[in-house]
Amino acid sequence: MSSTWNGNFSYKAMHTRPSPVREILAVIKKPGMISFAGGMPAPEVFPVNEFYESAHLLKDNGTELLQYGTTDGNPALREFLINFMEPRLGRKVGMDQIFLTTGSQQALDLFSWAMLDPGDVIITEDPSYMAAMTVFMNHGGVCRGIPCDGDGLQVEKVPALIESLRAEGKKVKFLYTIVNFQNPGGMTMGVEKRKKLAAIAEEYDIGIFEDDPYGYVRYEGDHLPSIFSFDKVGNVLYAGSFSKILAPGTRTGWVIGDPAIVRKMCVFKQSTDLCSSSVDQALIAEYCQKGHLVRHLPKIIDNYRRRRDSMEESMKRHLAPLGVTWVKPQGGFFYWINVPGVNTDELMKRALDKKVAFIQGSAFAVEPGACTNNARLNYTYCSPEVIEEGIARIAAAIQEMKAEAEGIKA
Amino acid sequence: MSSTWNGNFSYKAMHTRPSPVREILAVIKKPGMISFAGGMPAPEVFPVNEFYESAHLLKDNGTELLQYGTTDGNPALREFLINFMEPRLGRKVGMDQIFLTTGSQQALDLFSWAMLDPGDVIITEDPSYMAAMTVFMNHGGVCRGIPCDGDGLQVEKVPALIESLRAEGKKVKFLYTIVNFQNPGGMTMGVEKRKKLAAIAEEYDIGIFEDDPYGYVRYEGDHLPSIFSFDKVGNVLYAGSFSKILAPGTRTGWVIGDPAIVRKMCVFKQSTDLCSSSVDQALIAEYCQKGHLVRHLPKIIDNYRRRRDSMEESMKRHLAPLGVTWVKPQGGFFYWINVPGVNTDELMKRALDKKVAFIQGSAFAVEPGACTNNARLNYTYCSPEVIEEGIARIAAAIQEMKAEAEGIKA
Repeated sequence: MSSTWNGNFSYKAMHTRPSPVREILAVIKKPGMISFAGGMPAPEVFPVNEFYESAHLLKDNGTELLQYGTTDGNPALREFLINFMEPRLGRKVGMDQIFLTTGSQQALDLFSWAMLDPGDVIITEDPSYMAAMTVFMNHGGVCRGIPCDGDGLQVEKVPALIESLRAEGKKVKFLYTIVNFQNPGGMTMGVEKRKKLAAIAEEYDIGIFEDDPYGYVRYEGDHLPSIFSFDKVGNVLYAGSFSKILAPGTRTGWVIGDPAIVRKMCVFKQSTDLCSSSVDQALIAEYCQKGHLVRHLPKIIDNYRRRRDSMEESMKRHLAPLGVTWVKPQGGFFYWINVPGVNTDELMKRALDKKVAFIQGSAFAVEPGACTNNARLNYTYCSPEVIEEGIARIAAAIQEMKAEAEGIKA
Repeated sequence: MSSTWNGNFSYKAMHTRPSPVREILAVIKKPGMISFAGGMPAPEVFPVNEFYESAHLLKDNGTELLQYGTTDGNPALREFLINFMEPRLGRKVGMDQIFLTTGSQQALDLFSWAMLDPGDVIITEDPSYMAAMTVFMNHGGVCRGIPCDGDGLQVEKVPALIESLRAEGKKVKFLYTIVNFQNPGGMTMGVEKRKKLAAIAEEYDIGIFEDDPYGYVRYEGDHLPSIFSFDKVGNVLYAGSFSKILAPGTRTGWVIGDPAIVRKMCVFKQSTDLCSSSVDQALIAEYCQKGHLVRHLPKIIDNYRRRRDSMEESMKRHLAPLGVTWVKPQGGFFYWINVPGVNTDELMKRALDKKVAFIQGSAFAVEPGACTNNARLNYTYCSPEVIEEGIARIAAAIQEMKAEAEGIKA
């Protein structure tokens, strides 16, 4: 007799999908593999020595670090973030408007707990962050995508979509957007669009989840005010993370919003993991309070700008001649490329054979069957030399596919 | 106009309940408050110096600690646990049968994701751990309780309950049990009952979630083999935690079971928090590999045994004369007392006025309206002197209520 599990899984368990990014972590550990797949920071730029300065807390404040924390998280870190975030949010929020999460991925799960009944609709950019879509779907949500322009989501299409969904009897609960250096598209939402979106949320009585993991990683131009800063009624929830600007291994993110939604998400956090790590939060708090984070940001920005520029040059050299197109991102972690006439699911398999990994566009498609000629390439994890080699391998894989296609036609 | 949240919450959000234990953490920080409420380890016994020995990893292996980990968790720690758990599990499990969670609370959430559709039934001990019931209910599960004897769950009643539920057309997905030093009841399931339960799971094709956070905190008698050790088909999932034996602030637990269920839970972990803290897992791994955990266990057992004995003496002195009864637990964190004729919801309010906190029995009741004369008292967090004072305050609160009741009658 075999075990009970397979026959007794939940409906959700039979229909959820593994994350291609998480799954590929196993593949990219193979020797010689070059990975543009994950959204991983460069290990070389982790502030190892500065972060280690906080380690004395494990001795000097050990009994507090080793004990349970409150569900809303380390007060010193929340106070730091209130001040740190003030320019971007346009105001200083209260302590009942901020709490800490186990990475910003958990913010997506807790928000879904609070908001989604089966069949509820979430409006997103199309394409969008796959692990957000997965968590929304796990909670019974249905994602409807709106395309993007160079300045982000086609906001003008939002009211008509809400109205047509409501005419069908559907509940639109919130809009999910990655405002800065969108994942995977790389574009940033313009200021006028942000204003308009805040007004739409108020007019149509929907929430906005403003996901901003990359916002502080800007290579050119000025920081833009958040959608949150234009919100007059409290409908915008802002989520930030230390994963891309400090260290993802610490699994620490933060959520800022109206006390009503913050409180409800905290209640669900009680049942999903009680509280996040007291150790990580205390180490980060001291690191930030000493001014290290503010000094660290220019370093990672300089480093990642060079890597982006390397990938730009390598792609001009190897991919442009093959007809591949892209838009240069002003910040963040990713290029989003278009490979005309080449199915990138297939290209991905060829590329893995040549020991280079990326994520195929279809993984990010909101409306099924889209983005089959796209691919997301991360440039923060690899050094410029490795980037050059990896792009050359992708070019070889594309050439191989094109040559075969020609052969079939001929 | 006010914000959108309250009007747009999910059904789950409108029906979930905050954890009384988590909520009371705010109350017990008031000056002079004595807390028997939480299940907190004593800060005095945290192995601060030994744990700090691992802190060098933040420098020497910083780039790995600060980076994303894999979803299944630190391999060295999983390997340690495979060996550490071998006697209790009766065999050495494979690496595909173990993964790490953000505390064992997360194991409950991930297991619920994998198993529960709305209306599915979970059989539990009655009373049981409230935050397990909450997470099951959040996932649409319905808990049905079976009472306990001195040697735990009345296992002989399980088959009839399954059959009657199935006759009603209900799906029984799994049985949830805290086998050792049950929370809140304090009793331990006997060996014959464990064997029988494994056989019932096989016969009736259901899963068992064997929750064992307290199992290594045994003051007298021999360790008993796990239900897992009697399971021939793979139907038992075992969950352990470092929270009670090392440090809850590190938020690290583990799950061991059949690869089918382990894999499915990992897929849900991808969408709920991607992975747990690389920092905490690495620090714990080195701490354990150096032999510190094995040396630490006798220290906390000695300390907590003394605290249990102190509470026993204090209760004999102050509570027994008032008719309060209890069974002395052989391990774990809690006394479960019965206060005849006194509603413990009301007693809790009186006790808080006198600056002593515990958790009222009703919070643990599976079948509603039960346990109204019970209370759970934690003895690991307070020193013996503080325990004496706290018990005296509870006695005063009981006397006050009894005097008023007499007054009303007279």
